[in-house]
Amino acid sequence: MIVLVANLGSTSFKYKLFDMSNDEQMLAEGDADRIGQGGSAWSVTSGTQTLDGVMDLDDHAAAVKLHLAKLVELEVIQSAEEVQAIGFKAVHGGPISGAVEVDEKVLQVMEDISPLAPAHNPPYIAAMRSFKEKLPRAQQVAAFETAFHQTIPMARQLYAVPYEWIEKYGIKRYGFHGASHGYIASRMKELAPDAKKIINLHLGGSCSICAIEDGKSVATSMGTTPQTGVFHNNRVGDFDAFATIALKKHGLTEDEIYTSLGKKGGLLGISGVSPDMRDVYVEAEKGNGRAELAIEAFVESCRHYLGAYVVDLGGVDAITFTAGIAQYNADIRERILKNLEFLGVKLDQKKNKSVKGNQESRVEASDSDAQIWVLPTNEELIVARQTVQVLNKQKV
Amino acid sequence: MIVLVANLGSTSFKYKLFDMSNDEQMLAEGDADRIGQGGSAWSVTSGTQTLDGVMDLDDHAAAVKLHLAKLVELEVIQSAEEVQAIGFKAVHGGPISGAVEVDEKVLQVMEDISPLAPAHNPPYIAAMRSFKEKLPRAQQVAAFETAFHQTIPMARQLYAVPYEWIEKYGIKRYGFHGASHGYIASRMKELAPDAKKIINLHLGGSCSICAIEDGKSVATSMGTTPQTGVFHNNRVGDFDAFATIALKKHGLTEDEIYTSLGKKGGLLGISGVSPDMRDVYVEAEKGNGRAELAIEAFVESCRHYLGAYVVDLGGVDAITFTAGIAQYNADIRERILKNLEFLGVKLDQKKNKSVKGNQESRVEASDSDAQIWVLPTNEELIVARQTVQVLNKQKV
Repeated sequence: MIVLVANLGSTSFKYKLFDMSNDEQMLAEGDADRIGQGGSAWSVTSGTQTLDGVMDLDDHAAAVKLHLAKLVELEVIQSAEEVQAIGFKAVHGGPISGAVEVDEKVLQVMEDISPLAPAHNPPYIAAMRSFKEKLPRAQQVAAFETAFHQTIPMARQLYAVPYEWIEKYGIKRYGFHGASHGYIASRMKELAPDAKKIINLHLGGSCSICAIEDGKSVATSMGTTPQTGVFHNNRVGDFDAFATIALKKHGLTEDEIYTSLGKKGGLLGISGVSPDMRDVYVEAEKGNGRAELAIEAFVESCRHYLGAYVVDLGGVDAITFTAGIAQYNADIRERILKNLEFLGVKLDQKKNKSVKGNQESRVEASDSDAQIWVLPTNEELIVARQTVQVLNKQKV
Repeated sequence: MIVLVANLGSTSFKYKLFDMSNDEQMLAEGDADRIGQGGSAWSVTSGTQTLDGVMDLDDHAAAVKLHLAKLVELEVIQSAEEVQAIGFKAVHGGPISGAVEVDEKVLQVMEDISPLAPAHNPPYIAAMRSFKEKLPRAQQVAAFETAFHQTIPMARQLYAVPYEWIEKYGIKRYGFHGASHGYIASRMKELAPDAKKIINLHLGGSCSICAIEDGKSVATSMGTTPQTGVFHNNRVGDFDAFATIALKKHGLTEDEIYTSLGKKGGLLGISGVSPDMRDVYVEAEKGNGRAELAIEAFVESCRHYLGAYVVDLGGVDAITFTAGIAQYNADIRERILKNLEFLGVKLDQKKNKSVKGNQESRVEASDSDAQIWVLPTNEELIVARQTVQVLNKQKV
């Protein structure tokens, strides 16, 4: 089965194309920006070949149509009809458990839950409707980022809110980055089958940490929305909701408060330098105190969850690092794992420093009880697998 | 020095009277309710003697005057003038570090920071002004609940908010229950001088957890306000601030949301039974699933911080339990400490069950590396000590 895995932003489109019948081979990948805004830059790569250009793309369906034509031009596929399914790395499905074929009922649930993911759900809903109209042959599967976390015990999913908020409005901890945490869980089953208790740190532009027991999520740092938990490039992470009352008394509007928490917080907020950890490091090395403070606070934020999850798991067999910051920043890994020998966690500093971020590496010291890995994530592969599973089940 | 330590609510007044020159002896304690509402019930106890009654008390100063007269009547003191100082267990002093003599500047700071403690600061400010007018001879000291936490490293105090919010509006983690955590830190120096790394769980109507290293706070669970962290009798604790946006889209007003989070959340919110853990236990034992879920979620909330603080401390030498729930509920202690043998923490179940909550008890198993204590707190003694320190320093 040839599956296109789509990752959508409100004006952007990224995808990977997999041949799931042929050893899960990735055939091609591509992207397009400025969708609906005129002058979209697009590119598609298969092996060593790349095509790119600029053109107007009215909507996500137009972007997919262009890319399918280019995939034929590159002889990746013979015709657009060969793409049997589109798997969506969708964000918030609220009560929907796992991955499901997209139908009107699913779209309705996604609309109902949109207030919890206002930046993410609407473009997916629009694209799903548009693909259905313009590419009616391709079956659609929505694999929600929350799906991997549905094994978290209920007592850990709840906030202590009035119970009707949980029942009526779905206010609880969902967790996100499910495809990434799920990929690492499944990859670790191959790499280290004896590691039953794993803590995975997905640290990129957006950051979350997941406690994985026997391949299943048992705790994660994001909450009702992807804004909470460990802090992010420009988003606040954990915050005292009651502090907003004080901010309003100081004259800030609700809009200013939440826009700032969502766009001017995180690494950017504390450092004042940039939402990009690489920029923050450059400034910190020049002696910028706030940049150094932002790095330290980020590390504290990660260690907070690392500690909580060691207790949730009753120990740790492996710590895994994935996504941009975690794969490429050896110093962050070293700081996060500092003084954890009492838990049997000991980094080999030399191995850690020599990690190539785009390769799988194992970096614990020879006398460490726990394994420590740096692993490139592959969220799209998980979505492609879920897509095949959903569609195969339906055929049975 | 005779010191009266005052603990104020908007319509309530509690105090303890200490003779700090005579081995920190507590001479008497008392209270009054419905202040300003007519028909206040008051009582005062010294040793085995108690006086009580009902009368109208217009304000907190009237309550103090009444109690001073009753203390003379009981021959605890010869005259009201013997009370040299009033120490206030004040809540939020924002940028003020530690305990200070109350003057116009301090009152102004407390007013400025009132938006962060709207239920607590206004009655203290009113009482301080009124005492000054009506009891001008008694020196006033404000010992802020945040004071003990000012040793927390800055990287752990910060939320990842825009930096100007920290500087201009004081939006950071302050932490509260400082007198209680501080008392336990100082008592543990006497009981277990070798225990350098302590995690103290103050679990009462209001709950917080504190990591104590060499007698100093290095992390705590409450934040900008006392609403966050471990959840409370009827307050939410940690929550995703962005979930409020969804609640508003569902038609709830801001007032409804924050009133519910502050009064209909916590144990009450999840259980639907009561904000009192004893009531929740009774219902859980009858098979009420939501009551059981509330207990489990509370335990998870405590274990989350316990784990985080084990990492912050790099291990743990002692775990201490104080305040109503923690002192009197053996089952909660057992659940919180379950499966922590990998950290060297092992409860002796029999000792734990035989604890009398109002006595100091040590309850770890003989093969536990970490000590485990149940300790009645004495917040007022800490405030009395701080009061003496502040006033003695000024005389130098």
